[in-house]
Amino acid sequence: MQRALGERFVLHRSRDLLLYEYDGSIDKGRPECVVFPRSTEQVVQVMNIARDYDLPIVGRGAGTGLSGGVIPTRGGVMVGFSRMNKILEIDIENECAVVQPGVVNLDITRAVQAHGYYYAPDPSSQKACTIGGNVAENAGGPHTLIYGVTTNHVLGIEAVLSDGTVLEAGGKEQDRPGYDITGLLTGSEGTMALVTKVIVRLMRSCEAVETLLSIYDRPDDAATTVGELTAKAITPAAVEMLDGVMLRMVEEATHAGFPLDAEAVLLIELEGVREGVAEQLRQVRSVCEEAGAREVRIAKTARERELLWKGRKNAFGAVGRVSPTYYVQDGVVPRTRIADTLRHIYRVSEKYGLTISNIFHAGDGNMHPIILFDPRSEEETRRTRAAGEDILRYCIDAGGAITGEHGVGMEKNELMPLLFSDDSLAQMDRLMRIFNPDGRLNPGKVLPTGKGCLEVRTPAAPHKAVVW
Amino acid sequence: MQRALGERFVLHRSRDLLLYEYDGSIDKGRPECVVFPRSTEQVVQVMNIARDYDLPIVGRGAGTGLSGGVIPTRGGVMVGFSRMNKILEIDIENECAVVQPGVVNLDITRAVQAHGYYYAPDPSSQKACTIGGNVAENAGGPHTLIYGVTTNHVLGIEAVLSDGTVLEAGGKEQDRPGYDITGLLTGSEGTMALVTKVIVRLMRSCEAVETLLSIYDRPDDAATTVGELTAKAITPAAVEMLDGVMLRMVEEATHAGFPLDAEAVLLIELEGVREGVAEQLRQVRSVCEEAGAREVRIAKTARERELLWKGRKNAFGAVGRVSPTYYVQDGVVPRTRIADTLRHIYRVSEKYGLTISNIFHAGDGNMHPIILFDPRSEEETRRTRAAGEDILRYCIDAGGAITGEHGVGMEKNELMPLLFSDDSLAQMDRLMRIFNPDGRLNPGKVLPTGKGCLEVRTPAAPHKAVVW
Repeated sequence: MQRALGERFVLHRSRDLLLYEYDGSIDKGRPECVVFPRSTEQVVQVMNIARDYDLPIVGRGAGTGLSGGVIPTRGGVMVGFSRMNKILEIDIENECAVVQPGVVNLDITRAVQAHGYYYAPDPSSQKACTIGGNVAENAGGPHTLIYGVTTNHVLGIEAVLSDGTVLEAGGKEQDRPGYDITGLLTGSEGTMALVTKVIVRLMRSCEAVETLLSIYDRPDDAATTVGELTAKAITPAAVEMLDGVMLRMVEEATHAGFPLDAEAVLLIELEGVREGVAEQLRQVRSVCEEAGAREVRIAKTARERELLWKGRKNAFGAVGRVSPTYYVQDGVVPRTRIADTLRHIYRVSEKYGLTISNIFHAGDGNMHPIILFDPRSEEETRRTRAAGEDILRYCIDAGGAITGEHGVGMEKNELMPLLFSDDSLAQMDRLMRIFNPDGRLNPGKVLPTGKGCLEVRTPAAPHKAVVW
Repeated sequence: MQRALGERFVLHRSRDLLLYEYDGSIDKGRPECVVFPRSTEQVVQVMNIARDYDLPIVGRGAGTGLSGGVIPTRGGVMVGFSRMNKILEIDIENECAVVQPGVVNLDITRAVQAHGYYYAPDPSSQKACTIGGNVAENAGGPHTLIYGVTTNHVLGIEAVLSDGTVLEAGGKEQDRPGYDITGLLTGSEGTMALVTKVIVRLMRSCEAVETLLSIYDRPDDAATTVGELTAKAITPAAVEMLDGVMLRMVEEATHAGFPLDAEAVLLIELEGVREGVAEQLRQVRSVCEEAGAREVRIAKTARERELLWKGRKNAFGAVGRVSPTYYVQDGVVPRTRIADTLRHIYRVSEKYGLTISNIFHAGDGNMHPIILFDPRSEEETRRTRAAGEDILRYCIDAGGAITGEHGVGMEKNELMPLLFSDDSLAQMDRLMRIFNPDGRLNPGKVLPTGKGCLEVRTPAAPHKAVVW
């Protein structure tokens, strides 16, 4: 590796590797070396060396992931993309940009905003997280509600397969002939290829933005508001919910102006042309009030708006101030089930004796209960995992799923059988192995590991639905 | 088959099969029987019978496809979905509907418009074409420009594999864990599964719509307008172009009000909130005039708007009045290459001695040159195919692709090697065979047939890009 990349770009001493054991999840695992290629050619060289020595390989962007996606489960090579951080092309006429995987999400917007454009998917970590990681995890964000997740904004991909082959999928046009490989690789969590280049869609900036904070004495009323907005066919750009536990932690850390005695707030953003947004603001305000908001505050200046979002986007930091660590869940439920899912989360909190705060993309039904715990206590860690699983099972029973945007990773792969049949999982394994035949790319992620190599079995009944 | 479905729902006599030899393309081929299941269970039965007798199988919606997607290449069973035409569920709260594959595209909108919603993808054949066919071909339409193609509006799928397994992929939420099978099946042109149920996204209707017709003496000026709209960051809901040859045929057939002496018109539609659309209309008008439009007409009433769209949507019928038949191409070029691609099409028209009219989704760079010819002349048919291939090769050289929305089918599969390497095509073949191992589902489509069974070969150079 040192011969291929240069001595400075390969880490292998224990003290250097320590930093690469973690991501934003509660899992950890150490790679045998971390390498920093600067080009697709060097990624190919790294892949070839890993293949020759039969080593597992995992890519890493900024390590902000929340499902353990970049944690090495079997040692091997970690490929850091921090040197492949160039915006290669900005093509305003075709409304797209070509970027390397190490480019920070927000830097794309910064590079194109003078042209009146931006890159839409906005994970809360967007100041740090990279496009490569976003593509791997099919990342979402508050504005997913209106603009969709990462896969809706990726037009093409260049990637290196485990045999060193470079593939290019998609392109600047939105509908290429043949099968949709770009879509298949997006969200494949590093188990099919290492992405080395991404063509992202650029969207034009909106003329007007309004942000409002709707304050409630009861979480149920906030949940009702979300349902009523849909029922009235109002689609805000974002609808974020913070419950009482969370908003108090956030307020103490950021002084965003959240009332300390409320039990829930909704942070709602509207985007569009000026007059349209003004009319929508009036409608949203009245929906909030009818649903029982005790107060609706509208940000009057860009500074006030930024302060409200600062409260939302720095929530994880705020939790870090009051707890040694925390465990973020990522369940999804139909919007109509938000209120009862929240009530279940509060029951789980009592049952397991753990503080759970909630901050989430309410408009998408994408719940993020955050369980506070002390990892130095093995018993508390066990309880935390059990509480998390309890919540996810509830989400599945409610007709939802175990991840909305953080990925499956190594955190939820053993839960996949709750959602998918053995046959479906076997099919997914075969799909993955078309790109990654010997399973060395990010092993132990996405699919459950408990069962060894999966085999396709003929279903017992001829018409037994296989849920993917 | 008769025992499984009932005698009335199996056609096998020559005179009955005659009707099922065609679709909207210039290819033809006869199935050995046509069956009409009424449920997923019956589709499973049909699949099992076809498997037992080792018969090819192809699904058919309304037969409006333009790339020969439903033409049987090796006889076998055709599955007509005209009885599976129910809207099973309308879920306004979660903004989606669950429909059977035989539901006509426009009928979804008709069923939900009272709630203020509609189904966005709008192929010109939307009064006839079905969702099953739309999903198979990943269909687009004029409004693809702003809302994306079918894959952006399909949330989940139920499908039957060639071994009789029923699979369910996706669901009402937009980002399910695991690999994106819904996206992979969408646009797979019947080569992976028979789709038996589709969950489609519903969008809320816009408050205001404006439609304008911009009239030009030179096609180049119309092309310039399209580029300028993008440069000014204006995204209309649709930008359709008709050239002089086409608009004269359309005007004679529909009396939509297109001027007979113009050489190009743009049909531009704007959607959104009232005040925003009014402002955009002003901007678009000035872009058109600056680019050299000799006149810009704005539809004053819903009737005027419908008349303009009638001209656009009935274009194929208008061509049918003046020519025994025609051959519609579906090339895509970057928006910046529309003007020179049009000039090349006119050169091709002269070189091959064929009338070619143009009507297309200019905003997407999705060209639809329509070559008029008489299929009774073998020589003229040969010239027509050669002219079509000439145009598609030009599109590829311009950085585009061979299909924007009509699919590859059996019309362009032998051209796929122009766009994809042998390695990529071999990978696509392996992907397809995960779902359709013995290749009985819609054989002879999408992938080239000239080479027999494709084998994956290691590329000669370690870093030779494999273009998918």
